[in-house]
Amino acid sequence: MPHAEALKSRTTLRVRFHECDPLQIVWHDNYLKYFEEAREDFCRAHGISYQDAKSHSIATPIVKSMCEHKLPLRYGDVFEVETTYLDSPAAKMHFEYKIFKDEKVICTGETLQVFMDEKGEMLLSFPTFFLDWKKKTGLL
Amino acid sequence: MPHAEALKSRTTLRVRFHECDPLQIVWHDNYLKYFEEAREDFCRAHGISYQDAKSHSIATPIVKSMCEHKLPLRYGDVFEVETTYLDSPAAKMHFEYKIFKDEKVICTGETLQVFMDEKGEMLLSFPTFFLDWKKKTGLL
Amino acid sequence: MPHAEALKSRTTLRVRFHECDPLQIVWHDNYLKYFEEAREDFCRAHGISYQDAKSHSIATPIVKSMCEHKLPLRYGDVFEVETTYLDSPAAKMHFEYKIFKDEKVICTGETLQVFMDEKGEMLLSFPTFFLDWKKKTGLL
Amino acid sequence: MPHAEALKSRTTLRVRFHECDPLQIVWHDNYLKYFEEAREDFCRAHGISYQDAKSHSIATPIVKSMCEHKLPLRYGDVFEVETTYLDSPAAKMHFEYKIFKDEKVICTGETLQVFMDEKGEMLLSFPTFFLDWKKKTGLL
Repeated sequence: MPHAEALKSRTTLRVRFHECDPLQIVWHDNYLKYFEEAREDFCRAHGISYQDAKSHSIATPIVKSMCEHKLPLRYGDVFEVETTYLDSPAAKMHFEYKIFKDEKVICTGETLQVFMDEKGEMLLSFPTFFLDWKKKTGLL
Repeated sequence: MPHAEALKSRTTLRVRFHECDPLQIVWHDNYLKYFEEAREDFCRAHGISYQDAKSHSIATPIVKSMCEHKLPLRYGDVFEVETTYLDSPAAKMHFEYKIFKDEKVICTGETLQVFMDEKGEMLLSFPTFFLDWKKKTGLL
Repeated sequence: MPHAEALKSRTTLRVRFHECDPLQIVWHDNYLKYFEEAREDFCRAHGISYQDAKSHSIATPIVKSMCEHKLPLRYGDVFEVETTYLDSPAAKMHFEYKIFKDEKVICTGETLQVFMDEKGEMLLSFPTFFLDWKKKTGLL
Repeated sequence: MPHAEALKSRTTLRVRFHECDPLQIVWHDNYLKYFEEAREDFCRAHGISYQDAKSHSIATPIVKSMCEHKLPLRYGDVFEVETTYLDSPAAKMHFEYKIFKDEKVICTGETLQVFMDEKGEMLLSFPTFFLDWKKKTGLL
């Protein structure tokens, strides 16, 4: 059985010109885009997707995001995002991100998502498709 | 009766920091955002909206866009977008844009939109709500 | 003498079409753009600017940002951003944001900026131009 | 000797969630980002880069861009951008783009770039580093 600790993924990305600002560094909101790209990569790697949620008429909007910057990234830099799913008993998806370049930490971040039904009501317990995924991955 | 020639609007905008690139100038795709903002301003000024289309189950996706740059804009610049609706017998919405700063032309552009029904089929003639708008504005 | 408590500003903005995602709500990274727009508005209102910093060869990169979402915004929504400068003895700029629509809180957020010299070194004390601004506004 | 006809590249990309709009399709300005990503891929494949230009104090701003949409792309779609360098005797860089998905043409586009020196003056003839590149690739 896979262990919860194993629920990580690593994604390699490259800084695009238009993501950089007049200070020649990546403008801070782009890190949220990198986090999204890494989170989707995590989902593909661990067999769960936005489409799974959608087919159950569930949306998973982000209710909190945070990013803390240690070092800048510049145009052309190749970097890695380490994405970690933090399991919790509350009906939420909590991801942590660490961006590395040449083994230095560039930034760390977090996102929190909830499950929302068709009427826009927040679910108070995990939807079945997500519990199934947690079982499959050994989290339950 | 208003004359077709009159179907213009002017929108004043200011360049935001994150719209500028490492060359210290506005990155080119942001002009399409300025055009959108100006086009919506035009629509408010002339009494037509995306919601009008939506309430008739019509979408108006962009099928062509063009921008030609003469001079750059920089962070903090205040500029004006002149938006012109170009009437045509074909079932399309054709807008022309001119961006000015201090009476100099910064760029010119165009967008072309079609009318699409719920099934994603392109309409070959103008939908009724749009003909009504054309009558109201004196274009018909 | 103006009181520190007074260092607020309010900015009215409107949601643009391209800021909304397939869930029909504003995609979360756009709130960081709204915060930037509001912060610049604050700076204009209180007589300080990015250009002031730049003319002293000081950059003020964001080292931390956070956003917590309570309710969604949708295309066309008009909303207000309340920006508050939180004074501190540390050489940082700390802003708090609250977005309101129809007197309901849409989201809250924070950004933290540092002062960086030409060599990319973080300043450990406030630069002179910023101390001058703090005096002018009654914070010192 | 490589033939000018060969100056193409193909780049595979995937649509990200935040690139899609409330109509569930990629918002049109994102195609200019895909073109940029594909153009940089072309440059890596053919041994020329923004940094080459920069090291010669040359900038290559975009002076014209165009995109014509045939079919939409949706969230998660994997697509290919075919980038073609169109050689010309004028001191410009002219690229053509075709986006394909499942062998259907999604859109076509073009960008035109000029060479600009440190003072912001447009060069009337090709800079040396670019002529060298044209020789190396068999265009000269």
